Amino acid sequence: MIGGGQLARMTHQSAIALGQCLRVLAGSASEPAAAVSPDVVLGSHDDLDDLLRAAEGAVALTFDHEGVPLDHLRALEARGVVVRPPSAALQYAQDKMLMRERLAKLGLPVPAFVDLSGDVAAARAALIEFGAAQDWQIVLKAVRGGYDGRGVWLIDGDEAAALAAFDAAAGGDTVLMAEQKVPMARELSAMIARSPHGQGAAWPVVETIQRKGQCAVVLAPAPGLDPETAQRAQQMALALADELGVVGNMAMELFETVDGDLVVNELAMRPHNSGHWTMDGAVTSQFEQHLRAVLDYPLGATAATSDVVVMANILGAEQAPAMSMDERLHHLMARMPEAKVHLYGKDERPDRKVGHLNIVGRPGQSLDDVRERAERAAHWMSHGVWTDGWDPHEGEN
Amino acid sequence: MIGGGQLARMTHQSAIALGQCLRVLAGSASEPAAAVSPDVVLGSHDDLDDLLRAAEGAVALTFDHEGVPLDHLRALEARGVVVRPPSAALQYAQDKMLMRERLAKLGLPVPAFVDLSGDVAAARAALIEFGAAQDWQIVLKAVRGGYDGRGVWLIDGDEAAALAAFDAAAGGDTVLMAEQKVPMARELSAMIARSPHGQGAAWPVVETIQRKGQCAVVLAPAPGLDPETAQRAQQMALALADELGVVGNMAMELFETVDGDLVVNELAMRPHNSGHWTMDGAVTSQFEQHLRAVLDYPLGATAATSDVVVMANILGAEQAPAMSMDERLHHLMARMPEAKVHLYGKDERPDRKVGHLNIVGRPGQSLDDVRERAERAAHWMSHGVWTDGWDPHEGEN
Repeated sequence: MIGGGQLARMTHQSAIALGQCLRVLAGSASEPAAAVSPDVVLGSHDDLDDLLRAAEGAVALTFDHEGVPLDHLRALEARGVVVRPPSAALQYAQDKMLMRERLAKLGLPVPAFVDLSGDVAAARAALIEFGAAQDWQIVLKAVRGGYDGRGVWLIDGDEAAALAAFDAAAGGDTVLMAEQKVPMARELSAMIARSPHGQGAAWPVVETIQRKGQCAVVLAPAPGLDPETAQRAQQMALALADELGVVGNMAMELFETVDGDLVVNELAMRPHNSGHWTMDGAVTSQFEQHLRAVLDYPLGATAATSDVVVMANILGAEQAPAMSMDERLHHLMARMPEAKVHLYGKDERPDRKVGHLNIVGRPGQSLDDVRERAERAAHWMSHGVWTDGWDPHEGEN
Repeated sequence: MIGGGQLARMTHQSAIALGQCLRVLAGSASEPAAAVSPDVVLGSHDDLDDLLRAAEGAVALTFDHEGVPLDHLRALEARGVVVRPPSAALQYAQDKMLMRERLAKLGLPVPAFVDLSGDVAAARAALIEFGAAQDWQIVLKAVRGGYDGRGVWLIDGDEAAALAAFDAAAGGDTVLMAEQKVPMARELSAMIARSPHGQGAAWPVVETIQRKGQCAVVLAPAPGLDPETAQRAQQMALALADELGVVGNMAMELFETVDGDLVVNELAMRPHNSGHWTMDGAVTSQFEQHLRAVLDYPLGATAATSDVVVMANILGAEQAPAMSMDERLHHLMARMPEAKVHLYGKDERPDRKVGHLNIVGRPGQSLDDVRERAERAAHWMSHGVWTDGWDPHEGEN
């Protein structure tokens, strides 16, 4: 697996059960996955020689991020390395503009969008035309390299802010695109896996709650989601994975609009934050499933094992809490013996994902109850402060 | 963790979630745990220097087997190493005679037994007296070092066989004891964990099914077990762990007699085969719990997540199947996407435990259904032959 982050770390846990050991290409021995696997190749995902060293003798090569240059992926494939997902698929997760164009061609619901690459003056003019048509209710996005809210600018009607962001990006050689801001009710994620044989398997569609531009909480399954809408989301994801030739996991992030329609937001072709709930709440976790797909095993059952599962991320606080992470874990375990904590072995930095936890509902427990505990636990682990959980009216206007 | 076997391997999986990495003392880099953890000390559990090297800088030292000499444990403790469970407790899991005497003194129900250590002629005479009194319905056991049916001789009324086994053992310097053969209905296991603070937590009592002297199948919870009997078993285990000062997991193997009484058979103070079902079927797995106890975290919830969970061991076959383990795994996954397989990365040898699998019942699924699938899956994985599962009338007279 290329990348030594938490996704590789948790994939190694699943590899162990399958009688395997995950080799990781990591930048340093202290990265989350490199710290727990004995098979570490130190190097950079930007360096083809390092990638080749990592691939040597491996059955297949896969990823914990989208950062490997497309040319390198093609070079690996040309030398016979089994790259999963293949570059022909992964390029759509790497390049938001390419993804938008392909999805639009396939007739999938996407927001209105405009390409801002190429000649800067022409792109600026295109932005002004597009923005005006949308009353500047638009989102600017870096075509490549954004994640967890980085590389995304929400333009809330402010033309000057949009143009300033464009000019700054153009000055720094960041290629942008612009999209219509969808009048959404909430965000969903449809996670599926696809094997080289074309077997597909979909987990229940979940609701994702974003804070500061990154995933904070996942409700599984998405509460109150119309079953037909859920099925439509799963079918869209399965059909798209088939169309693009995805191998491995794919998360299709969706907006559910105020009218109940679905609009595709982003794609990820790897284990994904919106699938962490499966580690404790589904028959097959996303990490085992990704390995099954990449290693060409039949896929595992995707049913949830409970009516309600809530995942909450543990994030680095602005101010490091007085208590150490280890002390906070002690207190959490004493208060909530049912909490399933997953720590990544990362230093705490503001808003950095350093772990997550799952609360799996027991029969008769309500979503509000389960979510309250998950949010309270994650807030404690992040900030070292006990609160009453979350505000059920958060986000209401 | 001293020992590089599958118990350490699976403990490492749980350590990862707690933000840790398990150091193992292993005999070779290819042992199950050494193959998946980057923190391996190569050496022998019989060598005090190796034990000291493994303990250096570790928060605590624990075990995946009972094989460390007691004197070494005491020497480690004398040097300030935090040994969990401590030698004062672990000696009872290492020495069956010591365990029997202690349990009898504490008033716990044990079979009639006789010490056969010391002078060979006197011990032989004691055996003849004890055997005759029991109509030779006795079991001979090596006081130390037996496991998975090794070091146990079932004497089914055959005096000559008993004396032959005694003479062979005495010639080989194996110290024996003899026990009454209990007229049992079935075997149970009461698994608990105890923290250094004395917190105790008990999983549901399970039924264990032995074949060829070793655990083959576990039914969780033990079907049809009288709730008062189950509670009595849990209380016995918790009270004993407290009395002995156990830290970590303890499995109390029990006979349920034909009269519905309980008799203590064996003790293990570590993760145990009878607790493998917890990996997929309980809120907290035995491996996470053992770590929590040994590292002095509050213990996790022990509830089963399903009404029925069946664990079945994958054993090496007498004749290696034509299909490789990997091919068999492919076929199993295709047939049973719900099977949770745990492979240990071990070579297959006759009757050697090379993995296990859990089937977690879904609402409405019967024990017979779940067990049939688990046994069929394990038989396939062991032998490469599909059968109809197991004979529900097995063991009936």
